Amino acid sequence: MITKDKKVVLAYSGGLDTTYCALHLSKDLGMKVYTVLGNTGGFSDQELAAIEKKTQKLGVIEHTSIDLTEEYYAKCIKYLIMGNVLKNNCYPLSVSSERAFQAMAIAQYANEIGADYIAHGSTGAGNDQIRFDLIFQIMAPNAKIITPTRDLELSREEEIQYLKEAGIDDAFEKMAYSINAGIWGTSIGGKETLVSDKTIPEEAYPSQVTQTEPAELSIGFEKGELVSVNGETFENPLDAIKTIEKIGSAYGIGRDMHIGDTILGTKGRVAFEAAAPVLILKAHEMLEKHCLSKWQMHWKDQLGDFYGMLLHEAQYLEPLMRNIECFLEDSQKTVSGEVKLMLYPKYYQLIGVNSPNDLMSDAFGQYGEKNEGWTAEDVKGFTTILANSMKIYHTVNAK
Amino acid sequence: MITKDKKVVLAYSGGLDTTYCALHLSKDLGMKVYTVLGNTGGFSDQELAAIEKKTQKLGVIEHTSIDLTEEYYAKCIKYLIMGNVLKNNCYPLSVSSERAFQAMAIAQYANEIGADYIAHGSTGAGNDQIRFDLIFQIMAPNAKIITPTRDLELSREEEIQYLKEAGIDDAFEKMAYSINAGIWGTSIGGKETLVSDKTIPEEAYPSQVTQTEPAELSIGFEKGELVSVNGETFENPLDAIKTIEKIGSAYGIGRDMHIGDTILGTKGRVAFEAAAPVLILKAHEMLEKHCLSKWQMHWKDQLGDFYGMLLHEAQYLEPLMRNIECFLEDSQKTVSGEVKLMLYPKYYQLIGVNSPNDLMSDAFGQYGEKNEGWTAEDVKGFTTILANSMKIYHTVNAK
Amino acid sequence: MITKDKKVVLAYSGGLDTTYCALHLSKDLGMKVYTVLGNTGGFSDQELAAIEKKTQKLGVIEHTSIDLTEEYYAKCIKYLIMGNVLKNNCYPLSVSSERAFQAMAIAQYANEIGADYIAHGSTGAGNDQIRFDLIFQIMAPNAKIITPTRDLELSREEEIQYLKEAGIDDAFEKMAYSINAGIWGTSIGGKETLVSDKTIPEEAYPSQVTQTEPAELSIGFEKGELVSVNGETFENPLDAIKTIEKIGSAYGIGRDMHIGDTILGTKGRVAFEAAAPVLILKAHEMLEKHCLSKWQMHWKDQLGDFYGMLLHEAQYLEPLMRNIECFLEDSQKTVSGEVKLMLYPKYYQLIGVNSPNDLMSDAFGQYGEKNEGWTAEDVKGFTTILANSMKIYHTVNAK
Amino acid sequence: MITKDKKVVLAYSGGLDTTYCALHLSKDLGMKVYTVLGNTGGFSDQELAAIEKKTQKLGVIEHTSIDLTEEYYAKCIKYLIMGNVLKNNCYPLSVSSERAFQAMAIAQYANEIGADYIAHGSTGAGNDQIRFDLIFQIMAPNAKIITPTRDLELSREEEIQYLKEAGIDDAFEKMAYSINAGIWGTSIGGKETLVSDKTIPEEAYPSQVTQTEPAELSIGFEKGELVSVNGETFENPLDAIKTIEKIGSAYGIGRDMHIGDTILGTKGRVAFEAAAPVLILKAHEMLEKHCLSKWQMHWKDQLGDFYGMLLHEAQYLEPLMRNIECFLEDSQKTVSGEVKLMLYPKYYQLIGVNSPNDLMSDAFGQYGEKNEGWTAEDVKGFTTILANSMKIYHTVNAK
Repeated sequence: MITKDKKVVLAYSGGLDTTYCALHLSKDLGMKVYTVLGNTGGFSDQELAAIEKKTQKLGVIEHTSIDLTEEYYAKCIKYLIMGNVLKNNCYPLSVSSERAFQAMAIAQYANEIGADYIAHGSTGAGNDQIRFDLIFQIMAPNAKIITPTRDLELSREEEIQYLKEAGIDDAFEKMAYSINAGIWGTSIGGKETLVSDKTIPEEAYPSQVTQTEPAELSIGFEKGELVSVNGETFENPLDAIKTIEKIGSAYGIGRDMHIGDTILGTKGRVAFEAAAPVLILKAHEMLEKHCLSKWQMHWKDQLGDFYGMLLHEAQYLEPLMRNIECFLEDSQKTVSGEVKLMLYPKYYQLIGVNSPNDLMSDAFGQYGEKNEGWTAEDVKGFTTILANSMKIYHTVNAK
Repeated sequence: MITKDKKVVLAYSGGLDTTYCALHLSKDLGMKVYTVLGNTGGFSDQELAAIEKKTQKLGVIEHTSIDLTEEYYAKCIKYLIMGNVLKNNCYPLSVSSERAFQAMAIAQYANEIGADYIAHGSTGAGNDQIRFDLIFQIMAPNAKIITPTRDLELSREEEIQYLKEAGIDDAFEKMAYSINAGIWGTSIGGKETLVSDKTIPEEAYPSQVTQTEPAELSIGFEKGELVSVNGETFENPLDAIKTIEKIGSAYGIGRDMHIGDTILGTKGRVAFEAAAPVLILKAHEMLEKHCLSKWQMHWKDQLGDFYGMLLHEAQYLEPLMRNIECFLEDSQKTVSGEVKLMLYPKYYQLIGVNSPNDLMSDAFGQYGEKNEGWTAEDVKGFTTILANSMKIYHTVNAK
Repeated sequence: MITKDKKVVLAYSGGLDTTYCALHLSKDLGMKVYTVLGNTGGFSDQELAAIEKKTQKLGVIEHTSIDLTEEYYAKCIKYLIMGNVLKNNCYPLSVSSERAFQAMAIAQYANEIGADYIAHGSTGAGNDQIRFDLIFQIMAPNAKIITPTRDLELSREEEIQYLKEAGIDDAFEKMAYSINAGIWGTSIGGKETLVSDKTIPEEAYPSQVTQTEPAELSIGFEKGELVSVNGETFENPLDAIKTIEKIGSAYGIGRDMHIGDTILGTKGRVAFEAAAPVLILKAHEMLEKHCLSKWQMHWKDQLGDFYGMLLHEAQYLEPLMRNIECFLEDSQKTVSGEVKLMLYPKYYQLIGVNSPNDLMSDAFGQYGEKNEGWTAEDVKGFTTILANSMKIYHTVNAK
Repeated sequence: MITKDKKVVLAYSGGLDTTYCALHLSKDLGMKVYTVLGNTGGFSDQELAAIEKKTQKLGVIEHTSIDLTEEYYAKCIKYLIMGNVLKNNCYPLSVSSERAFQAMAIAQYANEIGADYIAHGSTGAGNDQIRFDLIFQIMAPNAKIITPTRDLELSREEEIQYLKEAGIDDAFEKMAYSINAGIWGTSIGGKETLVSDKTIPEEAYPSQVTQTEPAELSIGFEKGELVSVNGETFENPLDAIKTIEKIGSAYGIGRDMHIGDTILGTKGRVAFEAAAPVLILKAHEMLEKHCLSKWQMHWKDQLGDFYGMLLHEAQYLEPLMRNIECFLEDSQKTVSGEVKLMLYPKYYQLIGVNSPNDLMSDAFGQYGEKNEGWTAEDVKGFTTILANSMKIYHTVNAK
């Protein structure tokens, strides 16, 4: 593998692993390193500037930061909401889903500059390596994949030492908890997530509870998309998400522990906080219960689950995903209205909905109270016919 | 329809509607009335005795109370737990599921005494009428169904007046909230459940919050069945359920609002409190995440949902239900262990599990930290093969 | 029920039942009868003219024949092809699917003329009554439904006698087999279809085998839609269907017996011949096997089946149907190409496909022969990772 | 990798690849070679004896032939029948399913003799390598896998030359078609199966058509299992399968081309003949249409498909498989009776069934002819209620 003077694009996050990779690629392998940071909402402008500055010490030819948040919303988060996607009935896929968009942006960049190599800093023990490798192979087949962290199996200490010797003395001390933040939630790993019987402590959550007084929250949807929060209209759904996140995280809402199957076939645990995703998904689901038919809900559940599974497992580019998105989008034609919730420290309550598409209405009867549009005789007839198949089955098979 | 001196079995609950029916059948129609109460855990011995006494004033030939709790657990609740069944991702089917067992017991009783008629007191606007009618038709086809409340469409006031005139002056004043209690939860209807945008007030919940201090709760399962609570072993899972209910309801846990499709095709809302079902189902689900494979979870979800749907829609006797039960039971061979939770006023937190069948173990790698049993090269190979189909699809269809 | 001088729209087919109804409504009930025939491809111009003439003897105010074939294709057959819909893995839903379109056209007509009543001639023992009733209730809620054949339970002989007495002496002698023809196939009922152990004789099939020499047939698709037959391009897919029907039926292809669940809960059997549907669906399915991914096929199967089930069960207006149509249509973006078949008397053979979207290509390896794009090491890595979850499961649970 | 004097168990079939491997392992690598042939019904006693004799020339320590047919039936074929499993609606998984059983038997043998290595002769371009590797890794984790054919990438000519030089001059000339036979069908590969637009010629099929006269065939099932053929009772279902195979293959029935997704992500084609599987599966499916409920069929379809997919993809040891088997077995409680077919050269016709569990019976009405157990009014009531949800949806969303 000749690397000297070859162009390599490195997926860069500013963290220890990718910083090590940048220097290793430029210094040890003599490559022309282009670092690219795909921002899915986890970096502030300040952080981005600091990261850019750091790359200047790493022998990097050029550093680029790409804002993917809009695209990530339009091509993914939107469908996660429409599909009420919670992996294993719990996890909004905070990290899993954004990797695909980072990988696609980086692959496209590699194609544009005609890179010979494409690199990422993932280890060999997690899902992310597969998410990067897979999309790189499909979208940038001409660039060879190079993954120093995974291949050299260096410890954190060795990486830090290597960087120190090169004069890069960043604060890479091992944090007790590793944090991964994006617009659709923050995941948290630590010693408790490596075992089955513990959960992470209160203080490990990035957002701490600051609100103690209950408050009402209302979230407005138009055809399945976010349009308002507490009566204020948002043209950009991303602003609505940020607003809800700010409100909800102050109550410590949306924290939980995800336990699931890694793409590698092992079980893994990760803690997360995702106030906006949880509040939005649950509000949206309640609105759907009022606006969609039983069979729409039934199939949306199945397709939404599968969408989440494939997304989690790195397969955003599977063609089925596009078909499911069509289904989900079409199902949202009648999902408009406002959902009211109450927020309390650490929990919330869904109060109710107000929707022009609400299928629950006095005009069609009141459950348990009055029947409009049908008579007692109709129900008797209905039940007689509904009983038929079971009556026949049990009569025939009674002997 | 000749009713005079005919034997009729009436599903009796002691409430206004069935009390009206009992008297109407005996006095107005001159029938020999046998009242039967199918107890699925909602009645104490005292209440049962009071109800029996009340029937003596109604011209009833004989009153029978049948304890169905054991059977209801063994033939239904067990599978609801194994299937993690929450209708519309929310409701443990507290009332829906017990009706089938009451109906079956009453049909069997009607067959035993050779009843000419079989009666229930449901109105024409709810699901229960279908649950009774359907099972009566299948299991007691020789008994004609008679439903005075539904057919005469009397108001509560008219029923009360009728009973008063006959000297039955029970406390039937209209309660603000109608309550339906059983071992698997309590449902609550009221003026807020008839509209879309409100929820019932704190005081409408039968159990009030009395615990303010957080406490740990541990629930033990053996092959998917409840065996212990807080370290205490229970031979009878029903006792475990009652213990958990007592603990959890003091924290106000397990309250929510179910919005769903009635069998009649309308949308309906009902509030419920179901501390034990919610805590047990969520603990069980977490244990399964550690003990079952991805595909087992995937299919259990689908089959469990469908089981819940058919049960909710009165079709407990559909033969598919038995097949699903077999599937669920077989899937539980490796679902043993203890689940730890923390309880707080109004919410709870799942802490972790301890299980001999736990598939998450250091011995097979630590997610994101170390890979045991595979190398970086293995993952590259895996990803190359996994990418194949998508690479081909996008290459072929690139033009 | 006042009927005198009221406007009634009758779904008219020219058969005995609807002819009886027309006269009964006009003569006995004194109604203003508007007969409407919804033609889904089962009537020639000559037959339509003869039927129109017949209505003139029945006291009908106005007779209208509506050609629904185009709409039926665009809103239904197209999706049946895209979804490879064969009910119970056998029946192309020849009759079930067209009833919905007849019912919708008639309901719309009733609305337009402000009809007081809307009538059909179905008996009380079949699916069609439900297909008409259901759509009439939804789309023409202001018109009361009236169904003389079902309500009066007259025998064929009584109907014939009644018509004869009124001077209508049409050839209504009981045919040995009742035939129902449309563009998407012909169903055949007879004494053998009323029992479980017989099939209808050769001569009962409307089309007889006239071709004895094998012949090649090629069917071209563009994004899932029919575009050519044997190299000849068709602008209108209906013409392609008719061409294939003519070719295939001369070989006696597409005959079978459907056994299935009626909407009433009973089991029913019906014979059918449907050369074009069977050849088109099987050719289309083979093309998809080459052009779609495994998961696309998997979910298309499930959604296509459910689409067929709801359509069969009268629920074309269920909103889920529109969502499934979106999914199916989107999945067909890459389903273009030509499929070659060989026809023989009574059977056919699928030869192969020629498609620009074919995912099977030398360039990506030859199954069992050579691997392009991956190495032996890649497969070993793949298998190691794929084995992981099962290895862990069996190791943990070995004791 | 030290191989000298190490014990290796080789999955041996007597073909070129595995014969090469045996000699290579013993001669070039100096290993103690134990050849094991897992017979799933594709070898006669004569063939087995000839193969054993051949191993004596290959420096093999010991050759063992294990008859797996009974186990293969009891643990797999039985469920393929109960699940009506046809991969991609076409292929009875003739080869895919037997590999798992060969692999498991060989792994067990390797464990018993304490083998250091375990070997197979599959190439790197097909599914079989994964089926062997995967099960070897799970069941014989202490034996290293060694695959000379795959690793050395030798051509057939090189292998033949190598064997000739060692004096092994077997008839290994390249056949035009590669054949793989077992009790559940024979697969055939050839130049036509490597392209998309051709099928294999008549003469490539191992069984040629010898019967020209139509004949009746009846197949009896008891709880989903084969018990009789043409009235003759079989205690061993394998004998029934062989009898049906003999009858059906003389008509050239059960031939087709499977196009599907390989585990490697490519598309592959293979021809097959499988008279018994096709006739049995279709007869069984018809019996089920008479004996099972709509929802049982619906879910059996989904679970059977998934079972076939996982089996095809080497995952027989996935725990879900056992749960599905439970479901399928339980569903067969009422699947007993006899199915009548007519056989013709190249095609067959399903005539009908005779079953004590037949749900189609005069006693419950005749489809389209008479309604027993319900009235016209009942159907009207049924339809009114069934229409409710759609009426509400379309009314609410009409604006």
